[in-house]
Amino acid sequence: MADRYLLISTDTHAGLPPEKYREYLDPQYRAAFDESLANDVTSAQLINQDEHQRFLAEWNAQIGGHGGMTGSWDPVVRTKELDGEGVAAEVVFPDADAAGVGGVSGSPFGSGLGSSGDSDPELVMAGAWAHNRWLAEFCQHDPERRYGVAIVPALHDVQAAVRLVEWAANHGIRGGVMIPARWGSYPAYNDRVYDPLWSVCAEAGMVVHTHSGVGPTDYTWSPGLISIYATESYWWGARPFWALLLGGVFERHPTLRYAIAENGAWWVPDILDRMDSKWEGDHPTRKFGPSAFRDGMTMMPSEYYRRNVWLASSVMGEIEVERRHRIGVDRLMWGHDYPHPEGTWPNTRAWLRERFGAVPEDEARRILGLNAAELYGFDLARLAPVVERIGPTPQEIHGPAAAEASA
Amino acid sequence: MADRYLLISTDTHAGLPPEKYREYLDPQYRAAFDESLANDVTSAQLINQDEHQRFLAEWNAQIGGHGGMTGSWDPVVRTKELDGEGVAAEVVFPDADAAGVGGVSGSPFGSGLGSSGDSDPELVMAGAWAHNRWLAEFCQHDPERRYGVAIVPALHDVQAAVRLVEWAANHGIRGGVMIPARWGSYPAYNDRVYDPLWSVCAEAGMVVHTHSGVGPTDYTWSPGLISIYATESYWWGARPFWALLLGGVFERHPTLRYAIAENGAWWVPDILDRMDSKWEGDHPTRKFGPSAFRDGMTMMPSEYYRRNVWLASSVMGEIEVERRHRIGVDRLMWGHDYPHPEGTWPNTRAWLRERFGAVPEDEARRILGLNAAELYGFDLARLAPVVERIGPTPQEIHGPAAAEASA
Repeated sequence: MADRYLLISTDTHAGLPPEKYREYLDPQYRAAFDESLANDVTSAQLINQDEHQRFLAEWNAQIGGHGGMTGSWDPVVRTKELDGEGVAAEVVFPDADAAGVGGVSGSPFGSGLGSSGDSDPELVMAGAWAHNRWLAEFCQHDPERRYGVAIVPALHDVQAAVRLVEWAANHGIRGGVMIPARWGSYPAYNDRVYDPLWSVCAEAGMVVHTHSGVGPTDYTWSPGLISIYATESYWWGARPFWALLLGGVFERHPTLRYAIAENGAWWVPDILDRMDSKWEGDHPTRKFGPSAFRDGMTMMPSEYYRRNVWLASSVMGEIEVERRHRIGVDRLMWGHDYPHPEGTWPNTRAWLRERFGAVPEDEARRILGLNAAELYGFDLARLAPVVERIGPTPQEIHGPAAAEASA
Repeated sequence: MADRYLLISTDTHAGLPPEKYREYLDPQYRAAFDESLANDVTSAQLINQDEHQRFLAEWNAQIGGHGGMTGSWDPVVRTKELDGEGVAAEVVFPDADAAGVGGVSGSPFGSGLGSSGDSDPELVMAGAWAHNRWLAEFCQHDPERRYGVAIVPALHDVQAAVRLVEWAANHGIRGGVMIPARWGSYPAYNDRVYDPLWSVCAEAGMVVHTHSGVGPTDYTWSPGLISIYATESYWWGARPFWALLLGGVFERHPTLRYAIAENGAWWVPDILDRMDSKWEGDHPTRKFGPSAFRDGMTMMPSEYYRRNVWLASSVMGEIEVERRHRIGVDRLMWGHDYPHPEGTWPNTRAWLRERFGAVPEDEARRILGLNAAELYGFDLARLAPVVERIGPTPQEIHGPAAAEASA
């Protein structure tokens, strides 16, 4: 059974029910915290209520037998759920929707996936500390399988962000850090003001992440808002990629590693081609001159990409699987987005057969686990017994029975 | 010679040397205008000066024999240049860079391609009126070949925008209107506040355009700025597309026609697939419910696209030609971006052979002229003598000599 698949989910979510974060907050923020809980507008309030209730009923029926959402914060339930899906290890982001889908998202003061340059600087930092303290404890229940990602509100005070990275690295947080995907009125990530942050992340081996989630704020509440948000969301998660790359950050910090989480990867090849052709000086660049497009970069954009950037593309679509060679089989990492309903839990095994059944085994192994093992430094020897116990066999994913089983 | 190609360039630029707009401005704005001319920061000042001077020397040597940039405002020179390239008709946007490449862009108070929600409401409207007055005169020199696009700063005062559209329609401006690609803090185009504007455009048969050019304002002046801008620029030109479509504007205004100018089209198929799959209720949409994704829309996004939307993709790349069937051969329109240096002037004939030589003639005829003729209502009978005199022959574009000629 040595050939079972090592599955590493590079996109999961964990977090306490919102009110339980109270004790992890510095005391001076608890009054503001109580107030924020009372006044939070949830996304569930903004959609059709009949449809939402129907969805919740279906969803809860599906996951009820799996302990519901309690695996969001209960390490024993969580490990059981991961085992059931054949997932040996995970990279854990905040905001599990632990209060119920569409409820308060979790990490205090919107410091999780919703954190941006629009967040209150002091509160979002307090919220990040609270979640990170809890996360460090939580990951200790199963430290070889559970690599947490610390929340680092990087925008408002770079030195404070550096201290948070140092704290996380020293407290067993091994999944790296997540910085806000939108900077609002703060400097974008091409600005040199962030260099101390990239330095400490590179030195500590902390992978820097952006995660999709923060949408545009320049649409009014008017027809089509949610579909516009959903159409655009990948873009906001992707912008830091070229801000970092074209800003020369990977030139100045050659060992820095950056991963874009739950944000698709279908868009990557076209954008890379676009960046490369400008770097090479295509016709429309002439009037600006070559310096403008090689500003502090000695390599082509796609070369930095292949050295410094990964796509934690989570529940990838057929389109990512089709384009995997253009994206780079060594860049793509799978995730199952546990416990979010847009993920594949609790049907991951069937989904794997459907999406990866026809992918050659060596490529599927890279995307489903080996790339993540290398990037995050999971200990394969320590994970081996877990894989042997729960990992899907090649037969399960690719075998002739696969078509029948998933039919 | 009845089989010569009808070439309609759906992306050209015209405008006076900046200071000459003075007389077209309402008198109360002339003092502010003088001041703005004196204080304008040109894009040429922001790039490497040695490289810029080298570029200018090459460019001016290339176009000197063609009357330089004077065709930007001189109708006789302009017609001669169009004739030389085989272009029978054109759709004319503002900002010809008439002051010299990288100089002041032209249309007063930044009311041209740079107009956005960040513009001064009163001044940008005054500038639009000045340019439109001049444009109406300018197009009268060759009214069957020259369809001007009126500038309509639509954001600050929708009723004022409606009046401007009515004026333009009544003054021989037949290319339609251009609205700002970025709305800043004003309502986005999904908002019902703009419905009177869409109504008047639909009724008057004025095609609504957005044109690329306005970049993001949330990057600091730091490494990589120009390459980040160039990488992202298509996105800002494209956003109004899904704001309109997903906001149900084409449902409420079924005869409204919208064209996206000089903004590529390579990105269209993926975004359409994405919108369609959400409309159909793919897995990640479940928690929001179907209503959120069909908000006021009875058809699939791609159906509105095929009815209401065109791509005036100007100097299209190989990628657009390769993807033309996914984009829609009946949606794509060529342009040569005269007199901008990122266009193909004065080498358009050679470029046509290179890019369209291998495209079947019926498809090339649609993209190079027939789609535009239908959309804008050019009078083919009146253009026929021009085509007969200057249009490229199929042999010139597709013939066996083409490879040699372009080699």
